[in-house]
Amino acid sequence: MPRKNRILLMAVNFLEEAVSILTRTPATLDALLRGLPEAWTAATEGPGTWSPYVVIGHLIHGERADWMPRLKIILEHGPTRPFDPFDREAQFRESEGKSLSALLHEFAALRCENLACLRALDLQPKQFELTGKHPAFGPVTVRQLLATWTAHDLSHLLQISRVMAKRYKREVGPWAQYLPVMD
Amino acid sequence: MPRKNRILLMAVNFLEEAVSILTRTPATLDALLRGLPEAWTAATEGPGTWSPYVVIGHLIHGERADWMPRLKIILEHGPTRPFDPFDREAQFRESEGKSLSALLHEFAALRCENLACLRALDLQPKQFELTGKHPAFGPVTVRQLLATWTAHDLSHLLQISRVMAKRYKREVGPWAQYLPVMD
Repeated sequence: MPRKNRILLMAVNFLEEAVSILTRTPATLDALLRGLPEAWTAATEGPGTWSPYVVIGHLIHGERADWMPRLKIILEHGPTRPFDPFDREAQFRESEGKSLSALLHEFAALRCENLACLRALDLQPKQFELTGKHPAFGPVTVRQLLATWTAHDLSHLLQISRVMAKRYKREVGPWAQYLPVMD
Repeated sequence: MPRKNRILLMAVNFLEEAVSILTRTPATLDALLRGLPEAWTAATEGPGTWSPYVVIGHLIHGERADWMPRLKIILEHGPTRPFDPFDREAQFRESEGKSLSALLHEFAALRCENLACLRALDLQPKQFELTGKHPAFGPVTVRQLLATWTAHDLSHLLQISRVMAKRYKREVGPWAQYLPVMD
């Protein structure tokens, strides 16, 4: 296969694989959390740590302020305009008074819009290597941004599973030794 | 509230909360994994570690050989009959030739049957404290068994999320420092 076609195929595969995760996250979190007793959704790992409810608010803020806005900054300005810093505490204001059910709907709607925008951009293979400037650590590519959006979803699904599993640390008794999550 | 009623309420809440997770796991895994590119579902953390596909086979074997069979042993024999040891490698034989889609259906059907059996048992508060004998570490209660079934689901959801996130360890570039899962 000519080199140009190989690069094209690699970029198409990468985008398709990333989007296959990004598309599924809202339904996954909905299946896991909607209607669960609050004992699970408000559980934390101790003071200052996040509950599943807080995580959903954080994911919502990411849809509004992180991933697609940063992609647009790269496409419009390249590395000349650094990204706006991301507020990791925004959800404590923005989720206030909202039910988890409302947050799950909000996240699903925003993700759906953002993926529609991403498709509409019709990114070409060369554009995956365009760079932007992260306010803390400097140059990053479009491809790294999209990969991080994807891995960030998975890392918060991991966090929610861990927080809820650890709620049963004492309940499982001697089985804790078979469950590394309890360490 | 009289002590007897308090114990009753605690047992009812415990069972309801555990079942609320156990009921949701098949749909959660389905939303996350069905139709995903095999690059994700066959990913591992290295030789000898499990892919999401292998994990679903393991969960299926648990539905057949672990949780409800052990509960029935406790209810029928108490600690006089130790549980059968659980085969942690069974899925490598049993999943052979099956698609992930078929495994997800099989898991959902078995879980549904098992939860119907659990409801039919109509466990009474006192029964949560009945003990059985684990072949490796001895006495365990019905309550610990049910809590472990629940935490085990969450710990494998955590594992699947971790395995898939780590696939992007290099893809995320400098963002890895913000994603503890990549360590």
